[in-house]
Amino acid sequence: MLERAQSELTDWRGSGMSVMEMSHRSPEFVSIAAEAEARMRSLLGVPDDYAVLFLQGGATGQFAGVPLNLTAPGSSAAYVNTGAWSKKAIAEARRYLDVQVVADEKESNYSSVPAQGSLEVPAGAAYLHYTLNETIGGVEFPYVPETGDVPLVTDASSTILSRPLDVSRFGVIYAGAQKNLGPSGLVVTIVRKDLLGTARPETPSMIDWTAMAEADSMLNTPPTLSWYLVGLVLEWVEQQGGLTAMAERNRAKAELLYGAIDGSDFYSNPVQKEARSWMNVPFLVPDPALEKPFVQAAAEAGLSGLGGHRSVGGMRASIYNAMPIEGVQALVDFMTDFEKQNG
Amino acid sequence: MLERAQSELTDWRGSGMSVMEMSHRSPEFVSIAAEAEARMRSLLGVPDDYAVLFLQGGATGQFAGVPLNLTAPGSSAAYVNTGAWSKKAIAEARRYLDVQVVADEKESNYSSVPAQGSLEVPAGAAYLHYTLNETIGGVEFPYVPETGDVPLVTDASSTILSRPLDVSRFGVIYAGAQKNLGPSGLVVTIVRKDLLGTARPETPSMIDWTAMAEADSMLNTPPTLSWYLVGLVLEWVEQQGGLTAMAERNRAKAELLYGAIDGSDFYSNPVQKEARSWMNVPFLVPDPALEKPFVQAAAEAGLSGLGGHRSVGGMRASIYNAMPIEGVQALVDFMTDFEKQNG
Repeated sequence: MLERAQSELTDWRGSGMSVMEMSHRSPEFVSIAAEAEARMRSLLGVPDDYAVLFLQGGATGQFAGVPLNLTAPGSSAAYVNTGAWSKKAIAEARRYLDVQVVADEKESNYSSVPAQGSLEVPAGAAYLHYTLNETIGGVEFPYVPETGDVPLVTDASSTILSRPLDVSRFGVIYAGAQKNLGPSGLVVTIVRKDLLGTARPETPSMIDWTAMAEADSMLNTPPTLSWYLVGLVLEWVEQQGGLTAMAERNRAKAELLYGAIDGSDFYSNPVQKEARSWMNVPFLVPDPALEKPFVQAAAEAGLSGLGGHRSVGGMRASIYNAMPIEGVQALVDFMTDFEKQNG
Repeated sequence: MLERAQSELTDWRGSGMSVMEMSHRSPEFVSIAAEAEARMRSLLGVPDDYAVLFLQGGATGQFAGVPLNLTAPGSSAAYVNTGAWSKKAIAEARRYLDVQVVADEKESNYSSVPAQGSLEVPAGAAYLHYTLNETIGGVEFPYVPETGDVPLVTDASSTILSRPLDVSRFGVIYAGAQKNLGPSGLVVTIVRKDLLGTARPETPSMIDWTAMAEADSMLNTPPTLSWYLVGLVLEWVEQQGGLTAMAERNRAKAELLYGAIDGSDFYSNPVQKEARSWMNVPFLVPDPALEKPFVQAAAEAGLSGLGGHRSVGGMRASIYNAMPIEGVQALVDFMTDFEKQNG
């Protein structure tokens, strides 16, 4: 994907122009944009009664966008708290409505998700929001919550495209692009069309889904280069065999890594088995003093980015779509060696 | 600049990683980000008591950001209307406060700016906002308005880096990146630090200048690739000799093109001479039926993007920093030929 982007960067398909130099109204860019949307719809199986928006501001922008677009002032909404990203979504939502936290995994130190069937939506809640995958904690929902007629809203930033998702179960799915979709600076929001038309008057245009849907996400200049790069990633996922094939790959990668951790007395993963993320695998060594040497030795062996998030420490392997199973095997081999030398 | 970006796209300076693959918290990206900010400060001569923010959502996001960050509900602010972009800024601001239009160039069909010294700021206005350059109308302020103690706010999207600007005269300068700074999807906001700290509680975090300034613009994942590309553009401007040299180049380009238009009975530019933009040059032919043939023949001659904005028609040459004087000369030569054949 990167090589393709590189080869086309100064001259997109013989147009003599970089995508960066194209007007977003040019036929060339309009075709790039439409092709990316069509691929997203086809890969995820997005029904026709959903709009697919390409917006700016990341998932953080949508933390405000969700209450602003879906509710009037004085409303309430239900939120599930499974960790760091849930908390951020809740804090931002509290600026706009009454947040009712219907489940909080504090007791397990955010190593779990609520049991399937346990979530109850309070009367009057405008929607239920949950974080499909907690990037920092490595906690992922293995099921889609049932909320009846209440719209279900999810932050799918670090899950999207890693496996099939039944879009029809959701009112709104949003996902920052920088995990499985490509570059940062773009967020994809998939919204059921009957939920449009209710944005508060004070919603900034850039996160107003109704205005953006009417303008094909081009109310103002969109992030053209990022949109194009997302299109290349979608094409790559298609070539890999789509989301069923991605799910097989990602399941195998996760099983390999969790298997190595569980099979060792040296490494441990704190997350309850049914809630373990396929994308982000946090793990610990017996002595925190070994964390820094582990991360350094791994980096020297060509395995970078293994430090845990600065808020929690430990180690974390992020094994997004772009990571091949060979990369996970290399990590497992390194972990075995490190254990031999330090165990 | 594009070639440099191309050569580094899959491997940034031997790191083995694309900028796209870097964590925004990695030492590599933090150095890219800091270098771009330092270059911006040095080129524009930004005083130390100003924050330089790299945000998402374009100038359109800042249309909401300006009233949300600078005022409390129930406030009023003064706006100057010089055309299409002023109108958009005014429409968005009206969602948040009472907009007092202190000058409206409607009478000249938006071919002028208010006379220097004529702008009066009403008592109680929180700030005065103007559009430094109207991209569609081709109208540019040749002076900086005097507003005393009232903060001056400007949308400098299509002017920034084209010539020196006395930042100390402004409270806030914001500029979408896609004209002179690089790729779309990033907006630079330069704000005097004493204006921070007053954002309304309902300001979405992504456009909350105070929160973003405290987090070095990394409250959430920033548009890393765009930020890096802006850095490359800034380096290029530096190599060209900085803003004084850019201004000489841009003045010469503008004089060449306006000279050709004024010296012909065939072409005309509707903008009053003192308000003519150095960046966007709209022009007309005597018969509107010749517009389409002009644009088509120009495209065949390798001169693309000459159609006027769809809202106004006519022709428009955008001669941003990236356009060399040879490109303007080629346009002038083409215009002369076209006139001979159709005049």
